[in-house]
Amino acid sequence: MTIHRLAPTPDEYSYVFGGVEPRLTVKPGDIVEVSTEDCFGGRVTHPDDLPSRVVPFAELNPVAGPIEVEGAEPGDLLAVHFISIVPARPYAISSTFPLFGALTPTHETAMISAPLEERVWFYDLDLEKWTATYRAHSSDYTLELPLDPMHGTVGVAPASGEVRLVVTPSTHGGNMDTPELRAGTTLYLPVNVAGGMLSLGDGHARQGEGEVCGTGLESAMNSVIAVDLVKGGAPAWPRIESDDFVMTTGSIRPLEDAYRISQKELVDWTSDLTGLDTLDAYQLVSQLGLAPAANVCDPNYTMVAKLPKWALKSAAAYGGVHGRLRAAAEEYLVGHSTR
Amino acid sequence: MTIHRLAPTPDEYSYVFGGVEPRLTVKPGDIVEVSTEDCFGGRVTHPDDLPSRVVPFAELNPVAGPIEVEGAEPGDLLAVHFISIVPARPYAISSTFPLFGALTPTHETAMISAPLEERVWFYDLDLEKWTATYRAHSSDYTLELPLDPMHGTVGVAPASGEVRLVVTPSTHGGNMDTPELRAGTTLYLPVNVAGGMLSLGDGHARQGEGEVCGTGLESAMNSVIAVDLVKGGAPAWPRIESDDFVMTTGSIRPLEDAYRISQKELVDWTSDLTGLDTLDAYQLVSQLGLAPAANVCDPNYTMVAKLPKWALKSAAAYGGVHGRLRAAAEEYLVGHSTR
Amino acid sequence: MTIHRLAPTPDEYSYVFGGVEPRLTVKPGDIVEVSTEDCFGGRVTHPDDLPSRVVPFAELNPVAGPIEVEGAEPGDLLAVHFISIVPARPYAISSTFPLFGALTPTHETAMISAPLEERVWFYDLDLEKWTATYRAHSSDYTLELPLDPMHGTVGVAPASGEVRLVVTPSTHGGNMDTPELRAGTTLYLPVNVAGGMLSLGDGHARQGEGEVCGTGLESAMNSVIAVDLVKGGAPAWPRIESDDFVMTTGSIRPLEDAYRISQKELVDWTSDLTGLDTLDAYQLVSQLGLAPAANVCDPNYTMVAKLPKWALKSAAAYGGVHGRLRAAAEEYLVGHSTR
Amino acid sequence: MTIHRLAPTPDEYSYVFGGVEPRLTVKPGDIVEVSTEDCFGGRVTHPDDLPSRVVPFAELNPVAGPIEVEGAEPGDLLAVHFISIVPARPYAISSTFPLFGALTPTHETAMISAPLEERVWFYDLDLEKWTATYRAHSSDYTLELPLDPMHGTVGVAPASGEVRLVVTPSTHGGNMDTPELRAGTTLYLPVNVAGGMLSLGDGHARQGEGEVCGTGLESAMNSVIAVDLVKGGAPAWPRIESDDFVMTTGSIRPLEDAYRISQKELVDWTSDLTGLDTLDAYQLVSQLGLAPAANVCDPNYTMVAKLPKWALKSAAAYGGVHGRLRAAAEEYLVGHSTR
Repeated sequence: MTIHRLAPTPDEYSYVFGGVEPRLTVKPGDIVEVSTEDCFGGRVTHPDDLPSRVVPFAELNPVAGPIEVEGAEPGDLLAVHFISIVPARPYAISSTFPLFGALTPTHETAMISAPLEERVWFYDLDLEKWTATYRAHSSDYTLELPLDPMHGTVGVAPASGEVRLVVTPSTHGGNMDTPELRAGTTLYLPVNVAGGMLSLGDGHARQGEGEVCGTGLESAMNSVIAVDLVKGGAPAWPRIESDDFVMTTGSIRPLEDAYRISQKELVDWTSDLTGLDTLDAYQLVSQLGLAPAANVCDPNYTMVAKLPKWALKSAAAYGGVHGRLRAAAEEYLVGHSTR
Repeated sequence: MTIHRLAPTPDEYSYVFGGVEPRLTVKPGDIVEVSTEDCFGGRVTHPDDLPSRVVPFAELNPVAGPIEVEGAEPGDLLAVHFISIVPARPYAISSTFPLFGALTPTHETAMISAPLEERVWFYDLDLEKWTATYRAHSSDYTLELPLDPMHGTVGVAPASGEVRLVVTPSTHGGNMDTPELRAGTTLYLPVNVAGGMLSLGDGHARQGEGEVCGTGLESAMNSVIAVDLVKGGAPAWPRIESDDFVMTTGSIRPLEDAYRISQKELVDWTSDLTGLDTLDAYQLVSQLGLAPAANVCDPNYTMVAKLPKWALKSAAAYGGVHGRLRAAAEEYLVGHSTR
Repeated sequence: MTIHRLAPTPDEYSYVFGGVEPRLTVKPGDIVEVSTEDCFGGRVTHPDDLPSRVVPFAELNPVAGPIEVEGAEPGDLLAVHFISIVPARPYAISSTFPLFGALTPTHETAMISAPLEERVWFYDLDLEKWTATYRAHSSDYTLELPLDPMHGTVGVAPASGEVRLVVTPSTHGGNMDTPELRAGTTLYLPVNVAGGMLSLGDGHARQGEGEVCGTGLESAMNSVIAVDLVKGGAPAWPRIESDDFVMTTGSIRPLEDAYRISQKELVDWTSDLTGLDTLDAYQLVSQLGLAPAANVCDPNYTMVAKLPKWALKSAAAYGGVHGRLRAAAEEYLVGHSTR
Repeated sequence: MTIHRLAPTPDEYSYVFGGVEPRLTVKPGDIVEVSTEDCFGGRVTHPDDLPSRVVPFAELNPVAGPIEVEGAEPGDLLAVHFISIVPARPYAISSTFPLFGALTPTHETAMISAPLEERVWFYDLDLEKWTATYRAHSSDYTLELPLDPMHGTVGVAPASGEVRLVVTPSTHGGNMDTPELRAGTTLYLPVNVAGGMLSLGDGHARQGEGEVCGTGLESAMNSVIAVDLVKGGAPAWPRIESDDFVMTTGSIRPLEDAYRISQKELVDWTSDLTGLDTLDAYQLVSQLGLAPAANVCDPNYTMVAKLPKWALKSAAAYGGVHGRLRAAAEEYLVGHSTR
């Protein structure tokens, strides 16, 4: 078990997927302890620090990486297992933006009516109790929310030489902003360029489905991931596996097209895993599937489709790579404290 | 506790919301034992009965009712509590349609490419084990699915004199097709005309989120509901309350607008229940809310937004009507066997 | 040539399509001189009359009718030829609305940001010069715009017993708000109930494509129409014919689905008129078709698809009914002054 | 008047905007005679050459360039005037694709129903008569269509270091596929990187609005453009000026958001040119504006908004650059034969 460390300095973060030189090279099966900044680049340190004033637009959502995976070639599948995701600071931050979020005019849904007020919320994090404290501005209402840390942005270099801003999720992953990317899950990404070039960031101490205001509990993170490779198994869109569910994603607009992609992907995957024909798999997904929104605020919206693994009987995706990574994670966690 | 019975004969079903004479008149607090047909009007009795051949389009999705509620006036809120929902036959049916479902061209998403193959699946129901058995056509794959009965279509007469086909969900409720409408929940509907005029049907023995193929486990149902009235409390869109969640709905196209409506409704409801201002409520919903798809196949799509009730502290919606109906349901269930 | 007159008093207007008793009965081939109110019911008479204050929501967009056409049966095609459309008052009115229009949050595209300012513009109409004068509020900018009068709302009783608010365009026509419905054109509508039950209103002295602010130059109108019937020719969606173009419409959300419907309709119509198979007709429409927006502000959006009639060679739609109505219009106009 | 020549060999074409070394460097005011391949890279030479078989996906839609413009800096406006666009071969080609076009399932609107038949149409071009001959497959129907040559793909390097596939239109221009980009018009693009880095291709001998089947009359072109620079005038989205209209574009999904962007851009531009405040400009655009679809088939859809220039009175956009380029074009055309 080889363990690497990736702890970028402020000028070592990147803001795009694709076209960036690797910061680290690992082998399939290796583990990486990685530090990531929050989506504000750590620049918001007080409720009066309005993001639109203190963070240049081009420096939103820094990602650590890319991590080059030896042997990864276009057409392969990159498996990224999240061993642990732990907030790195005693606070997390959320905010509204003048032209961002689902319930306000944006650059994409352009209007001439007034944009939304910008407001910042600071949450105190308690890693012992594993909670974050919400504090209202308009009253003394407070509430302890359970932590459920995740990475909003995880992806690889896109296909065809494209370079994409970190904020736009697509077939290469990116800013999918789904709470499903928590510790214990494995993300499957297509390899589009030699080495795959994995980057990640945008930790959220927790997030609602849809991320309606545009931000979760934005938090710098200390995370541990294990990376593996399945030759020739590249999915068309990012997929996720937990102990209980197989999940697919679609990231596009309008939201029904994101739903369609995620559902077709789940139908196809179910068909592959069970031998059912497409219509029989469609039927099974129709009756057992879950369909939570991931984000409805980013330049592409993301929907997730989920099927409980018991419906697949003995089938194991990609040769059982999730189970192997889960075991490696257990082994790692025995010897390391992550909080 | 007054208990009514509504068991329509085939010619007593209706196919629209609005403009129909009441079949039953009840008082707030009354209970109704109601029988509903499946969405095929009971005409599909064998896997070879293709719905497009055996069911006239205008006779899809029959609803029982309307039920007139004494004292209900425009602007009031009608509370419909589902005491029990039990399949009435030992089977349920699902099918694809040539021009219906999320992953095929439809009348709304019109294309010149070929429509989908029509195929029918029969599920054996076991009310003892509370399961339905899926059987593939393309192989001998079978699977026992847990029952989770619900009504896909519940609504009232629309506002402004409109009469709407049962298949189209909107502000009056209708064919929302959300698995959240299960026994133990209370549905809140606006009263638009004197008496409210409640109708329901389209039982599903279970359904995935999004109802991607266009049908759930379509099943005739024997259901028991309790009806109550909150004067002056009409919501803009249907809302749902369970023991654990408050939920809002939006039914429209595109899917992001259904999401926007459901989320704005949840923000507004949260603000009303907690005294938070709109932005503070927006923040809380952003971090704690769930956002499952209900249907992405009907003429309007439906999204649901959910907030756990513990986040509302001691607040009780609509004077605690859900709790009172839950207690009445318990009382009813002591004296009656529903399966 | 039988000529009828339909001049509703204020309480004789209706606000829905469907379920209304006829105000007039005519025979195919008859002519009707019809007066219509503006969309504000004539209640806005001064720039300080904000529509949201002076017009009850339920009384927006009154329509004259219904006109029953003898012999019209479900499945028939109703042809409505516009002989003349002339503003009835020396002014027209346009306004923004707080929650209406394409560039502001609305009831359908729900947001928590502030709605738009409501502002009213009065246009002086000069029927001699055939112009309307635009006057800015923010400066002394004025501009003479050519009149191009049209009816925003024309439709019949919907199918399946539905009753729809006048503001929502769909398969029955309704509030399509396309500038193509000007004098000299023929509108083809499906007959869904005996008599067809034609209503019209919402005159615009002119309107841009898309009606982006939500209103045109709203104007009471004195119009003359000729009505005819084609047995068994009901189109799925409203169609329009001018001397130079055949046109199809689709009214739904999202806008790409309105586009898809209008284009598929034009492909199908082209195929019917030329004998080309679907793919060959698709190709011809792809290279010669026009695709202007009609409205992108109403509860359903409307797109129009247009093909120049020279591409159809000698084909005449529906047995040449447009040409016959055009000739009848000429005959009428010889004997009548319409301005 | 400096005249350059850009005639790429097959291996000199590029397939992305951004990240490509310039092929030519020019000064503001210079003229470039440029040859472009058709979208199939010239590989389809017979109706039996199905594009999906003879053209690798990554080699669709080659563009000539980039052209570096001396002095162009981020924030500047690049003006590209089309002096002439003339088909380079005696034929043009159109086709359907299995998963491309507005009326078929696609990669973005993913479905499980069957994709469309792939079919190729060859058009004979007659540059004397300025026509293209349509020939049906299913019958002997033929039709002469007027030529109206244009470039479907014109753009610059994107902002923020992004590299985008040629097929995806966005703020940097790209594959907007609007018939408005014909000879005699000026396209305004934002400069995002030093030199601007202009590329163009995808000539169509003509195209319908919306490009519903996914292709126009695809044609290699011999074109002549003049390039100019306006310091500091970068628009948010590409704009177009002809002798009669100012036009704006929006390229995104869903189509209503493309419409919203194009309309807001036109409102803002009108306000800038006339001094009207935003609401007064919104009103004027609402009544005079045109709103044709450009493409409803590419990864982003494009809508165009048009305002007749007479409504702007004496205002001249960007210091009258269109007029100056028009004059330079006249001068060039005196001395050069373009057909």
